[in-house]
Amino acid sequence: MKIGLIQMDVVDDKSKNLSKAKKMIGEVVGQGAEIVVLPEMFSTPYANDKFRPYSEDQDGLSVKWMQETAKEYGILLIGGSIPESDGEKLYNTAFVVNEKGAVLGRHRKMHLFDIDVPGKVRFIESDTLTPGDETTVLDTKFGKIGVAICYDMRFPELFRKMTLLGAELIFVPAAFNTTTGPLHWHVLTRARALDNQIFLAIASPARSDGLDYKAYGHSLVVDPWGQIENELDEKEGVLVVEIDMKKIEQVRQEIPVLKHRRTQLY
Amino acid sequence: MKIGLIQMDVVDDKSKNLSKAKKMIGEVVGQGAEIVVLPEMFSTPYANDKFRPYSEDQDGLSVKWMQETAKEYGILLIGGSIPESDGEKLYNTAFVVNEKGAVLGRHRKMHLFDIDVPGKVRFIESDTLTPGDETTVLDTKFGKIGVAICYDMRFPELFRKMTLLGAELIFVPAAFNTTTGPLHWHVLTRARALDNQIFLAIASPARSDGLDYKAYGHSLVVDPWGQIENELDEKEGVLVVEIDMKKIEQVRQEIPVLKHRRTQLY
Repeated sequence: MKIGLIQMDVVDDKSKNLSKAKKMIGEVVGQGAEIVVLPEMFSTPYANDKFRPYSEDQDGLSVKWMQETAKEYGILLIGGSIPESDGEKLYNTAFVVNEKGAVLGRHRKMHLFDIDVPGKVRFIESDTLTPGDETTVLDTKFGKIGVAICYDMRFPELFRKMTLLGAELIFVPAAFNTTTGPLHWHVLTRARALDNQIFLAIASPARSDGLDYKAYGHSLVVDPWGQIENELDEKEGVLVVEIDMKKIEQVRQEIPVLKHRRTQLY
Repeated sequence: MKIGLIQMDVVDDKSKNLSKAKKMIGEVVGQGAEIVVLPEMFSTPYANDKFRPYSEDQDGLSVKWMQETAKEYGILLIGGSIPESDGEKLYNTAFVVNEKGAVLGRHRKMHLFDIDVPGKVRFIESDTLTPGDETTVLDTKFGKIGVAICYDMRFPELFRKMTLLGAELIFVPAAFNTTTGPLHWHVLTRARALDNQIFLAIASPARSDGLDYKAYGHSLVVDPWGQIENELDEKEGVLVVEIDMKKIEQVRQEIPVLKHRRTQLY
């Protein structure tokens, strides 16, 4: 099975972003990708003052675009994330659409990114966004997949729960920055995959000169041994990785950590 | 506060191992260490057929040696581990002794190392050992410290629990090998420290030509940002690291993951 990751240079123009995303999806499909993941806020600049004006509800243009695109290319599409409006509330939401254009589900970011590293990076998502309350594991023709978004990465509890619910392949649209990325991107992605012995694919926007928020890039795929299968740098680009789901069974047999948990003791 | 890590070349002779450990403890104390951690099975070759003949109970020679050594040097000693007998049962146990020679507590390895990577490494601790059933967080004059042993590292639940019980500094006597070490030693140690925003010190035996089990070495200290403070290679040696506990408060303020947990949802 091949999965495609889209690391795009997001600009302050939704229709340009959608056009570019479609073109890049075409590229990875041309390389054989059957599941494609877009980055967090792939059509919206990552900034609190953009989330409201760029927001749409689940019947809006962006979800329709995902449905048409997934159907046209015959792929399972993890639609990065968009600012989703629901009444007065805004969520940071990844919709998942299958090859027939059906919406299989959605993940609303459960942990909002409220951090303040003085002189380096400050971002308070909760100024504008509401957190989701549901763990997302979806049945697909490729098996059960989990979805989390960016700062959700910092919570091992969520990844353990997705694993126990049966997810063997977890997709993470994410936008770490040039402070947290070099410090934590690789260790977090590798540890979540290793601890749970699952595949993890994380897709970031490219680092953009045009936007205030400097995304880390480095979209990558980790295998159930915690090893990086392949990785982009910070520039715009795509990554197609062929994954062998049998690796999961192998590592779980050789180092059976999931069986060795002492669940009565934690 | 300075902590000392002892990475010793373990041989098949208990009294030689104890003598060497004492000499190396003297070295780190000479460099200012106030807390010292010995490696897993520091006085016993890491092999199932050695655990029984080398075992002692809590009133045996090795614990007495720890009490005398800790008192003589005025240190808090995390006594690596020994094969501890308790009736018919054997445990892989770390005793913790304070500068007055008092035993503050013990950690019995909770997760036994039963792995089988064909052609690379097979070890079934449960052939001889019994797992402990208790999470270990001890009050000391340096604050609350946690103790885990080797394969316990693979269980994020245990490290989260120690953190929630107040441990800010966790010691891990450990003996990864030349297969699991290169793959997983750094990612596991960094992730446990980063996820919980604590200090972690892990002490391994040196890689020894004389023993069948080839320990990974690479004893190291990780800070609450998940960054490695300092690290040995695979050879015998000691490491003294000065740690600044204020870093914990800083990272927990800047990236407040422990406050951001959605405990109702996992």
